[in-house]
Amino acid sequence: MAMEQKAFQDYYPDNLSYCYGCGRLNEHGLHIKSYWEGDEAVCRFTPKPYHSAIPGYVYGGLIASLIDCHSTGTASAAAYRAQGREMGSEPPLRFVTASLKVDYLRPTPLGVPLEVRATVKEISGRKVIVESKLIANGEVCARGEVVAVQMPEHLLAALTPPQGHPSPVGEPRERGQG
Amino acid sequence: MAMEQKAFQDYYPDNLSYCYGCGRLNEHGLHIKSYWEGDEAVCRFTPKPYHSAIPGYVYGGLIASLIDCHSTGTASAAAYRAQGREMGSEPPLRFVTASLKVDYLRPTPLGVPLEVRATVKEISGRKVIVESKLIANGEVCARGEVVAVQMPEHLLAALTPPQGHPSPVGEPRERGQG
Repeated sequence: MAMEQKAFQDYYPDNLSYCYGCGRLNEHGLHIKSYWEGDEAVCRFTPKPYHSAIPGYVYGGLIASLIDCHSTGTASAAAYRAQGREMGSEPPLRFVTASLKVDYLRPTPLGVPLEVRATVKEISGRKVIVESKLIANGEVCARGEVVAVQMPEHLLAALTPPQGHPSPVGEPRERGQG
Repeated sequence: MAMEQKAFQDYYPDNLSYCYGCGRLNEHGLHIKSYWEGDEAVCRFTPKPYHSAIPGYVYGGLIASLIDCHSTGTASAAAYRAQGREMGSEPPLRFVTASLKVDYLRPTPLGVPLEVRATVKEISGRKVIVESKLIANGEVCARGEVVAVQMPEHLLAALTPPQGHPSPVGEPRERGQG
């Protein structure tokens, strides 16, 4: 196991790092980060004051976003582990969300750090099912289940940075050169 | 039926209008708006360029947010209808999300207007189940199901605008006066 504390998302290739939720190159995004702690993957995130639902509580769409990106990141990390490969080695193993289910058990308090703890329920073929719980002040406030599916290699290869984002190297890149 | 085109969310009381997804008083928020079109409730939203997942496609967490706020808004409007009451009449009928399920059927293209069309599957007691589909370029890209539950009146009455938000009247308000 690597001793360094790079997040799962820090291993994504540049052209997959513009996700609003977890892309390190999306300057407007949430920058969700995930790490192994033993067999659990953990994400910590403190919402902004404006990430409110009803006053004093966290917006459910933000909770869904945390669970979504943390779970696809966990799926990627779990797939590398299952193949005995180092995170970030080629070809990249990157997952997209096929389905997302969130049960909101109680209102999630705003103003404290949140923790999402995820475990891999199933890996089969290109599919990984990730279960998670969102914890605030020691209480489980939401539960998530994500079915993540590995992106096809040909789609991966065709991606270039999107319009409207700065290039990661700071100057415009040629588009469409794969 | 009212002839004016106020959105469902425009009828929410001030202290329930700070939602990051749909609160008209949340200056950082998405300002999701929902309207009846016959028995369907419709929300139209054009994501920003930075609301990306993989390049060229819409972030799944944003899709979940649209479905979430549109569905709780639809639950509220449907409850007023079921009681034969005008939207916005007292006491307010406001719903929170008990569960959210999104199936991502295909990547949702970024750069075009999205439409979420919702129907009420069930109203029973304080619970409303709302089904929806998210459409881009005429294609259904995602399906949602939300179980919405009516907020208790005592909780409603206790809410005040949250810390970190400007007051809707533009100057500080006394807190904790219900």
